[in-house]
Amino acid sequence: MEHDLTMLVDLYELTMANGMLLDGKKDTVTYFDMFFRRVPDDGGYAIMAGVEQLMDYFENLHFSEDDIAYLRGLGCFSAQFLDYLKDFHFECDVWSIPEGTPIFPKEPIITVKGPVIQTMMVETTLLLMINHQSLIATKANRVVRSAGGHPVVEFGARRAQGDTAATLGSRAAYIGGCVGTSNLEASKLFNIPPYGTMAHSWIQLFGSEYEAFKVYAEHYPTNCVLLIDTYNVLKSGLPTAIRVFNDILKPKGYRPAGVRIDSGDITYLSKKIRKILDEAGYEDCKILVSNSLDEYIIRDMRIQGAKVDSYCVGERLITASSEPVFGGVYKLAAVEEGGQIIPRIKISENVEKITLPGFKTIWRLFDRETGKAIADVVTLANEEIDDTKPYEIFDPDHTWKRKTVTNFFAKRIKVQIFQGGKRIYESPSVQEIQKYCAEQIGTLWDEVLRFENPHEYYVDLSQKLWDMRHELLSKYSK
Amino acid sequence: MEHDLTMLVDLYELTMANGMLLDGKKDTVTYFDMFFRRVPDDGGYAIMAGVEQLMDYFENLHFSEDDIAYLRGLGCFSAQFLDYLKDFHFECDVWSIPEGTPIFPKEPIITVKGPVIQTMMVETTLLLMINHQSLIATKANRVVRSAGGHPVVEFGARRAQGDTAATLGSRAAYIGGCVGTSNLEASKLFNIPPYGTMAHSWIQLFGSEYEAFKVYAEHYPTNCVLLIDTYNVLKSGLPTAIRVFNDILKPKGYRPAGVRIDSGDITYLSKKIRKILDEAGYEDCKILVSNSLDEYIIRDMRIQGAKVDSYCVGERLITASSEPVFGGVYKLAAVEEGGQIIPRIKISENVEKITLPGFKTIWRLFDRETGKAIADVVTLANEEIDDTKPYEIFDPDHTWKRKTVTNFFAKRIKVQIFQGGKRIYESPSVQEIQKYCAEQIGTLWDEVLRFENPHEYYVDLSQKLWDMRHELLSKYSK
Repeated sequence: MEHDLTMLVDLYELTMANGMLLDGKKDTVTYFDMFFRRVPDDGGYAIMAGVEQLMDYFENLHFSEDDIAYLRGLGCFSAQFLDYLKDFHFECDVWSIPEGTPIFPKEPIITVKGPVIQTMMVETTLLLMINHQSLIATKANRVVRSAGGHPVVEFGARRAQGDTAATLGSRAAYIGGCVGTSNLEASKLFNIPPYGTMAHSWIQLFGSEYEAFKVYAEHYPTNCVLLIDTYNVLKSGLPTAIRVFNDILKPKGYRPAGVRIDSGDITYLSKKIRKILDEAGYEDCKILVSNSLDEYIIRDMRIQGAKVDSYCVGERLITASSEPVFGGVYKLAAVEEGGQIIPRIKISENVEKITLPGFKTIWRLFDRETGKAIADVVTLANEEIDDTKPYEIFDPDHTWKRKTVTNFFAKRIKVQIFQGGKRIYESPSVQEIQKYCAEQIGTLWDEVLRFENPHEYYVDLSQKLWDMRHELLSKYSK
Repeated sequence: MEHDLTMLVDLYELTMANGMLLDGKKDTVTYFDMFFRRVPDDGGYAIMAGVEQLMDYFENLHFSEDDIAYLRGLGCFSAQFLDYLKDFHFECDVWSIPEGTPIFPKEPIITVKGPVIQTMMVETTLLLMINHQSLIATKANRVVRSAGGHPVVEFGARRAQGDTAATLGSRAAYIGGCVGTSNLEASKLFNIPPYGTMAHSWIQLFGSEYEAFKVYAEHYPTNCVLLIDTYNVLKSGLPTAIRVFNDILKPKGYRPAGVRIDSGDITYLSKKIRKILDEAGYEDCKILVSNSLDEYIIRDMRIQGAKVDSYCVGERLITASSEPVFGGVYKLAAVEEGGQIIPRIKISENVEKITLPGFKTIWRLFDRETGKAIADVVTLANEEIDDTKPYEIFDPDHTWKRKTVTNFFAKRIKVQIFQGGKRIYESPSVQEIQKYCAEQIGTLWDEVLRFENPHEYYVDLSQKLWDMRHELLSKYSK
């Protein structure tokens, strides 16, 4: 997966970089933040993902002779800039929230510090990688929650938006709680358990459903999942499957693994199937379902008492189809001048597009008694939160709403991952990230977890940061 | 872009292939069709795209030692099958509709003929590639149509679902009619014109908007597009831009290229901006706009008289966000037995999931007088349509609806692209495909082109194919 992505950059990033160099500003030290403005599907939280691939991208950044020849041909870059690109190596410091962490709007989930010529250049791919995987991890987690403990398998490769969407989408889905994937590239690269049954074409290739099931059962007796909806589930598929279980598996002492349906009224059929399987002595035979599922359909199926053991979820998960964009942005927050960090703000006629200025970090406050997360507080990077004393948090928009937090502990949730262009953070395995993600979601109150009208988790600002922002806003609104 | 995608395969395809081999059926000659069931966004047509990348995939198909070691480790494949994979080379015949062609539901847009062990194996990546690029080309074409001749530039890389979604998405968007892309990887690979302006961060890095614009104008006098919404468009950005045009460009004899806005009420602002620019003597200065645009927003802006010259469209195009899935499927249509092609059908409780049997091709009938497309007719591959005589078409669901076509010409719209595993078709350049696409859309009646309730273009069956399908349906419904 580590193909060269250096040229995955928007033209304007390089024309600006060239301009900075010509203007003598190329080494100006800048701080850029990535943040997002709202959680997809109006959920209560999103899940950070894509950091491992972002680190690979930073490590592999270099311009080939071919790239430079192409850029020269565009006719808009100076010879000096093209020379600079020849010897390009990444020099920035980067801080990030670790993968699998629940994240919230407006907080700076990634910060890049370094010479402006470089911090500008990484915008597109940084955003793309974090936007994509965070989108899918967040969606997968919604689907997994809707299944209430039943396994969810990611089956979406054929409908993904390109090959990396399939494979890194599988990775993100696994982080969000899926138990496995159909996609062998993802399975091989990230050691994710692969899952699969059979296609309708298998059935059609034999003279009869009985023959098709029989051959499959003979070759895969230990993991025999039969697809029973090619002709008619209740009249043909299911009775034939049971005959094959009896004729082929039973004499050899094997138990069937499951039956799958991919069409029809799944809730209704699943209840009928369960009853018939049980009566035939196959209480342990699982029912797997697929067919354009998502968290809303699964929730409805469960409310109506569907007898489903595993959900195979494809296109609506791998594209996050209900809201297929994670709107992360990357904005200038500060510039160093004479050794001082000077905060910068972006004003906008759309109030929600106004940025947080300064070099910042994020603290998460946890209740000592329950272990639950109370709020995130964005502070300047050099601020500390003393959790041995009561701490007052306040709503940054409605500052009269205040609350004093006691008996809590405060944790910085951003870690430095690059220093001077070198990677200083080892990514955990996706298995560890998946486990960590589940644990961290466990620290959120139920009110934040629900699908409809979740409680808005507090993302507050320290008084210092609030004052700095207020001062800049007042200055520019004049 | 030609990285190895051999392992981008769903587990079940390989377990079925292994089963076929063990059952002595691996060389059974099969015919699989790709088709889709509905046009995204309820449009009147979709656009075929992704064939060039599909051909690259077929040509690069091979299993490395590493892949085989991984598959062996899964414990579900026979030694015989793993040996087969070692020497795997693609042997199939493939027919496809060329890229850029308008395509319609239910017609077999791709057919793969070959030994079943291979035709099964390519399902996932074949679908992924055609689904993805056809989705984006179709969406881009909607956006382009909404802009009514004004250029649309694809600006979505940062919100794409992975890197190939960005780069092949740019390619597909260009096929659909965009004039260029911000993404330099796509530009370099496919020779697509790159576009870009400046980011808000450029402005913020200078002491004032004037200073920021001045430096940019000095370095890019021939292509000076200024972003004027960092602080306040009408009070600050626009007047400052005009000062810079007057102070920096005018004395040197340059004309400004444009101004861009990315926030606020774009329709309102564009009209104000146009008036002020005109009054300042910059009637030729273009107005570029961005900010979560799509075909619906652009249509509304134009209805309200927005003065926009170019539309920069990002996330909603590159993810096709209003409907981010192109639901192409890949189904068995026929099997050879004793030298005969035996049609196969997939029945389903969902009527729209029933397939078209047999080895088929597609004819498009054009009116000789107007040049307009009248209908597509799916026939068996060995049928001919004699366009020197009147030809009767009929609705395959309501067979009493019949129409005799006269004064027409009939064209087979599928071409063979692989023969015995070898590529026999040279993909045109994306520039040629874009041109061909526009021409072909020109053959569709306005009634098919409209956004709301488009006329359903006729996709009919030949009498022979209809009879074959009817016979199989009658047989299985017993």
